[in-house]
Amino acid sequence: MIYTHNVSFKTKGDGEIVDLSAYVREAIAKSGTTAGMLTVCTTGSTAGITTIEFEPGLVKDIPALMEKLVPRGPTYQHDATWGDGNGYAHLRSALIGTSFVVSYSGGRPHLGTWQQVVFLDFDNRPRKRNVVIQVMGE
Amino acid sequence: MIYTHNVSFKTKGDGEIVDLSAYVREAIAKSGTTAGMLTVCTTGSTAGITTIEFEPGLVKDIPALMEKLVPRGPTYQHDATWGDGNGYAHLRSALIGTSFVVSYSGGRPHLGTWQQVVFLDFDNRPRKRNVVIQVMGE
Amino acid sequence: MIYTHNVSFKTKGDGEIVDLSAYVREAIAKSGTTAGMLTVCTTGSTAGITTIEFEPGLVKDIPALMEKLVPRGPTYQHDATWGDGNGYAHLRSALIGTSFVVSYSGGRPHLGTWQQVVFLDFDNRPRKRNVVIQVMGE
Repeated sequence: MIYTHNVSFKTKGDGEIVDLSAYVREAIAKSGTTAGMLTVCTTGSTAGITTIEFEPGLVKDIPALMEKLVPRGPTYQHDATWGDGNGYAHLRSALIGTSFVVSYSGGRPHLGTWQQVVFLDFDNRPRKRNVVIQVMGE
Repeated sequence: MIYTHNVSFKTKGDGEIVDLSAYVREAIAKSGTTAGMLTVCTTGSTAGITTIEFEPGLVKDIPALMEKLVPRGPTYQHDATWGDGNGYAHLRSALIGTSFVVSYSGGRPHLGTWQQVVFLDFDNRPRKRNVVIQVMGE
Repeated sequence: MIYTHNVSFKTKGDGEIVDLSAYVREAIAKSGTTAGMLTVCTTGSTAGITTIEFEPGLVKDIPALMEKLVPRGPTYQHDATWGDGNGYAHLRSALIGTSFVVSYSGGRPHLGTWQQVVFLDFDNRPRKRNVVIQVMGE
């Protein structure tokens, strides 16, 4: 049994973090299955999917870490190709990854209480973002 | 065919690395399937799942790299929220990721001889850790 | 329905990046399925799988970022174990991850137009590389 759950939302850029937990629960519920695995994929190449404890402190710490590891400052070769100045966002995306997989049973994903699936926006401008949550189970 | 394999073990914190290979093989064997895909998920938000060659050198190199990329030193905003001083551990977890997926066939995971699935503990204190290995195959 | 697609190719080392998009499309087509999820796994522990916009700028930016985050220069403990001088390559692999999962429907993977699944070679010598794309769907 495969169920595809399409989600879209607007992001402001500049390190915004979106909690996807409600979407994940909704996808499992709508699939009518109770056990299996699900993927959370973004079709953007200037974003990432990972898990964090979604609380105000880490919501500031994550962009600060990204700025330290892959700073916005230097000109990247990508910027020479397109001139849109978001080379750093592409690199952060490759580092974090654009999909996440988690299993579930009893209708609940195998995530901790303080562990939320999140969308990390790295781009330098507002965007409409698409995420596909695909549920495969029984 | 879906099989859920729950694993728990104690970690000492401070960069301990646990080889999960035996658990992965056990999960495939108990599932009674020979081909499919499996997920390895931790429900902790101060840990990570990845693959390394599990040998004594890298077991020291990985924590050293983490300390360089996400040092323990500075105070993170997360620490202001909870006061447990493990903000760095949460950030390392978000960077490495808390789940891993691998396919298998002929009853064996598609991993190299020098490639082990490992649990990376980033926390600053001993913990009881839970890992769920879910096998979906035929 | 499970289909295993084995791919192998030669890499030159030193940060080479291989676009796997054609292999992914081929695996879905050969599976005879139109919806499901697929994993892309490498059995090497000195390589990584992620997504980037595969264009000449980022193809230079990614190795430069890796060199900054995990430089080749220092001697790692791993090098003391084996003496092959590629400790940095193992660490980069653990950081990026050696598998990637993506869902698909309508026979097409849920990836953006400017988002390609890529193999990142981190080793310091030419290698023959193996990648397994496993498709599970209906």
